Order: sequence, then C-alpha cells, then structure tokens
Amino acid sequence: MFMGEFALIQTVFAQRARALLEENPSAFVALGIGDDCALLNGLGSHEQLAISTDMFVEGTHFFAGTAPQDIGFKALAVNLSDLAAMGASPVGFTLALSLPTANQSFLTQFADGLFELAQQAQCPLIGGDTTRGPLNIAVTVFGRVDRTRVLRRDAAKAGQDLWVTGHLGGAALAVQQLYAGELPAAPSKQRLLRPQPRLAMGAALLSVANSALDLSDGLYGDLGHIARASQVDIEIDLALLPLDEILSSLPTDAANHLALCGGDDYELAFTADVQARDAIVSLGLQQGLRVTRIGHVRPAKIEPRVICLDSSGVPLSLEWHSTLSAYEHF
Amino acid sequence: MFMGEFALIQTVFAQRARALLEENPSAFVALGIGDDCALLNGLGSHEQLAISTDMFVEGTHFFAGTAPQDIGFKALAVNLSDLAAMGASPVGFTLALSLPTANQSFLTQFADGLFELAQQAQCPLIGGDTTRGPLNIAVTVFGRVDRTRVLRRDAAKAGQDLWVTGHLGGAALAVQQLYAGELPAAPSKQRLLRPQPRLAMGAALLSVANSALDLSDGLYGDLGHIARASQVDIEIDLALLPLDEILSSLPTDAANHLALCGGDDYELAFTADVQARDAIVSLGLQQGLRVTRIGHVRPAKIEPRVICLDSSGVPLSLEWHSTLSAYEHF
Repeated sequence: MFMGEFALIQTVFAQRARALLEENPSAFVALGIGDDCALLNGLGSHEQLAISTDMFVEGTHFFAGTAPQDIGFKALAVNLSDLAAMGASPVGFTLALSLPTANQSFLTQFADGLFELAQQAQCPLIGGDTTRGPLNIAVTVFGRVDRTRVLRRDAAKAGQDLWVTGHLGGAALAVQQLYAGELPAAPSKQRLLRPQPRLAMGAALLSVANSALDLSDGLYGDLGHIARASQVDIEIDLALLPLDEILSSLPTDAANHLALCGGDDYELAFTADVQARDAIVSLGLQQGLRVTRIGHVRPAKIEPRVICLDSSGVPLSLEWHSTLSAYEHF
Repeated sequence: MFMGEFALIQTVFAQRARALLEENPSAFVALGIGDDCALLNGLGSHEQLAISTDMFVEGTHFFAGTAPQDIGFKALAVNLSDLAAMGASPVGFTLALSLPTANQSFLTQFADGLFELAQQAQCPLIGGDTTRGPLNIAVTVFGRVDRTRVLRRDAAKAGQDLWVTGHLGGAALAVQQLYAGELPAAPSKQRLLRPQPRLAMGAALLSVANSALDLSDGLYGDLGHIARASQVDIEIDLALLPLDEILSSLPTDAANHLALCGGDDYELAFTADVQARDAIVSLGLQQGLRVTRIGHVRPAKIEPRVICLDSSGVPLSLEWHSTLSAYEHF
C-alpha cells in the first residue's frame, strides 16, 4: 500500500467537501480542507461553539457487513445528534478515517451516505485525515448555539416535566435480532442504521426546554447523566413510554426493557417547566415529530437517581431496577 | 469486556481534564467534558478558530512497542504543530480513543504523556470518546488566530524568501534505523518521539511571515503544498539545509535525502518578504530556535513545483528530483 493511495482518498473527500460548500456557501467556514487547519469565522457575541466527537468502530458500533452507506450516514448522525441535544445548529465537521486498504468501492459508498446526511443537515466537511489501519471513523462536529439558552445536562429542576421525542426501542430490537442471527424487519433495521438527528427539534426546544440529552445508550442509563449533573431524581412513568410500533408483538415487560435499556434510539429526552406543555405539543405538531411527556423531575431524595413508576404511579422495587443496565454497544 | 470499563476510562480522562482546567482556567472553554458537547465561548471579532484533526494508528504512525507516554505526547504534538503552522494559539482539544482492552497501566502512561504536553501548551482536553477496538487515537485541536494575519498555504508570493525552523532529518534517521532493526541513539529517538510543536514561533511569525506549514511528510513533498496552493515555484538551496547534527556521519547526499524526504520533523517552513530578514533572525534569537533561510519563491514557470539547487545555485536534473518522494509513514 502506498501513501499515494491514501493521499488520493483525501483528494476525493476534499473534492466532494468543496463541492458541497460551493453549493451551500457558509458564513461560518472561512477555510475548508487543504491547509494545516480549517478556519471558522467568529460566531455572534451571544453564541457558543458546541463541539462533539465520536469514534465509530466495526464490531463495537456496527456489525461487520453493514453497508458502507449506512456506516457513513450513521457516523455523522450520532455526532449531529449530540448537537441536537444541546440545541445547536450545525456549522461543519471533520473526519478522521483509517482503512485497511484504499478500497474504492467501499469509499465511494461510505462517502455517499456521509454526504447525503451532510447535505441534508447543511453541515460541510471542513477537515480530515485518512490513514492506513483497522477500519475506524472519528467524526468531530461543530455547531453554534445561543449561550443563554443552550440545553445543558445540569439544568434540570425539580417540578419540571420529563419529555421524549419519537418512539423508543426499535433500534434495540434490531440489535437483539442481529445478535440472535435473525434478520431484522426493514423498519427496525432502518431505525438502527439511519437514526435521524433531531436538529430542528433541538433548536426549537431552546425556547421552551431547560436540559436535554440524546439517547444513545438507553433511556434509563442516559437519564442518569441528567439526574447526577442536575442533582435531581427523575421519575419515568412506564405506562407513558412511546414504544416503537415494531415492539407491539412483544410482552409489555420485554418492550419496556428495550425502550429503557436498548440504545441507538438517538431521540431527545428533555425537561421543561409545566407551563411549557402546550408550546411543546405545538412544536411536535409543527415538526411532525411525536413528543411525549413521560415523567417528572423531583428533588433528589438521597443520591440523585432515575426511578421507574408502575401504571399506578408507584415506584418499582430496587430489585426490579437492578435488572436494568446501560446499553452495551454490541 | 464490559461497557463499564470503558466508562471508567472516560471518567479518568475527564477527571484529569477537569483538574487541568481548574489549575489553568481558560476564558474560552465555557463547558468541558461531561455533556453532549463541549462549549467554547465566541472569539474576538478579529479572530478565527483554527481546527485540525489527525489520526494516530499503531504500525502506521508509531512502531509497536512505543512507550505509551510517547504515544500520548506525540498524538497531541502533531496536532498542535498544525496550529503552529497557521500561527494559531491553542484553545483546547478533543480525544477519541479506541483500545483493545481497558489496560490501566497503558492508559495511565498514555495520559501522562498526553497531559504533560497539554499542560505545557496550555491546551485543555474538552471532550472525548473512548471505545473498544484496535488501538487508534484521533485528536482534534482548536486554536485562535488573527484573521488578517493567519499563515495560509496559499499566501506565498514570488520574490519571498523560504525559511525553516530547527534542524531537519533527525527523526527520519530514527525511522530508518528502526526499520533496519537497529536501536536509534537517544537524540534521534527523541526527535522522532517527542517533536516540539513550534507554537511560540508560529504565533510570532504572524507579524513577519506570509505562508507556512509544518513538516510532517518531508520538506520536499510538503513544500509542494505551498507551491500548488500559491501557484508559485519554490527553490531550495541544498547547501543551506540545516541538517540535524545527528546526520553528520552520513554522506551529504544521504543526509540531504533524509532532510528532504524524511518526515516527522514537525518544524515550520515559511515564506516571508526580503524586508523581514532581520526581524526573523531576531525572533530566532529571542526564542532560542534556529531559523534558516534556505531558498526562494519564484513565479511558476509551468506547473507550480519545488526545485532543488546544487551548491552553485544550479537546478538539479529532473532525474535527480525523481528520486525524491514524499515520506511514507512506515
């Protein structure tokens, strides 16, 4: 393998990156791929730059044999989902890619999926590095957000409602089936491979919500981050969980378990004042995205924690909770 | 391997990252590790944010068996070197790390080298991701730079001098020796494993230089980037090359070849007006870093290219040039 082949890859990505920037000029990108660094123009004085990085590894984040388009799409999607969870709007991203061989067919398809979402999200590729090694994709994404309204994990307050976008558990069902050697149905596979970062909803929530995060490792484990950062208890009404319709044939307990512990949903969970209920429902209708009120923020009793309530609103036992564990990327 | 172990790694890095930020508070970092995104405050209106990303893979960028401290140091150093090459000052960096096992001893030592340089460069770790997979380190670094003076590759002008910092070829000798199964002498190994990003010099050059880049793949190949971006020819006087003293026992041709084609020097090459000569020499003296004038920028004759001159100032033949090739990371 010659250095030259990897330089060529870089050229191909750079050309597609430049084409995308030319079609969709950005006020923020002063210099894209081709120098020692990319350059972003300064943001407005009321804004902050939101930055997130995620590494995507075969066998850990996607099954061997996943279509390259889906790998490209999802590697960017999970990062954009982090922007959405802060309420930030995409400015651009960098891509560091290591590949065992300069496989042109893989690369073209990978780039197709990646740029499909980059175009959709108006998020240009502004820098990168390509090298020889085991398949590994590291994306770092940049967004801008109003500094006074940014949705941080430490901003949940007792008395607020807990909400979630979309439906839960569909992607986890696909993972469970793939593990068992079964072929997931198309809708379930789609949930796993093509998560839609909730960028428009995240940005709209800036005006009505306080804290938020995106669901990558499962609702129960992820809400623990908000509970600890905000020093509150979070109660989930299990009867209110918006279960993915794909789970309808499962027993309720099994479906709830996938919704609570399954990962890869990339929906947003957020907390908001009771007064914001009508506004949030309106936002959901406007955007054609289901929003469901599923619980409450309470003062922390002892250690901040997440508590599931049964259909009568009674907390489930500690034993029951101990069966829940955070999602382990397969 | 449980997810829990990797979550633990993240906690360890997050704690060290927070400690460093507390010891060295930054006006730019509004939120470090622990949320969906890190948040950077807006820069001054005259500034741009410089961003660079590099992936570091065992067997491609470092030999198997390299000390973890050295891997940690160099993974950040090569990225900081990109900031230096734009004249940018560090603001922070993100780290995405994949590891086969949560090896505590490796991690502690890796973090020691990484944070040693982070502290030295006042560049806090502001975000990250840790996952299971073949060893791979992706660093993305952020810096700020005066938008009117930033050192871009496309800013070289015919008539300018070509300069280089430090000494060349020392790291390449170590690579050559390691390939041959020999043990490099300590100074040569140090050049390879502990490159010093020229941040102070890069920042100082903003006021006197026009274009710059850092030398990662060898002087000859790297200068080709400036030649093409600026549409100029670049002449190198071989007799003026500041060869590393480690090369003194080699025949001149062999030493020149290492200096021209060997990589991993991470010195800065830059172009500046003739009027700036005295100022540049003064900068070198102030900073205790050798600066050497090694050539000239010329109008491009046909295709922009880099041309080596012999000791009489006569261009070497095309055949001679064809023996030069860009550095191939081993």
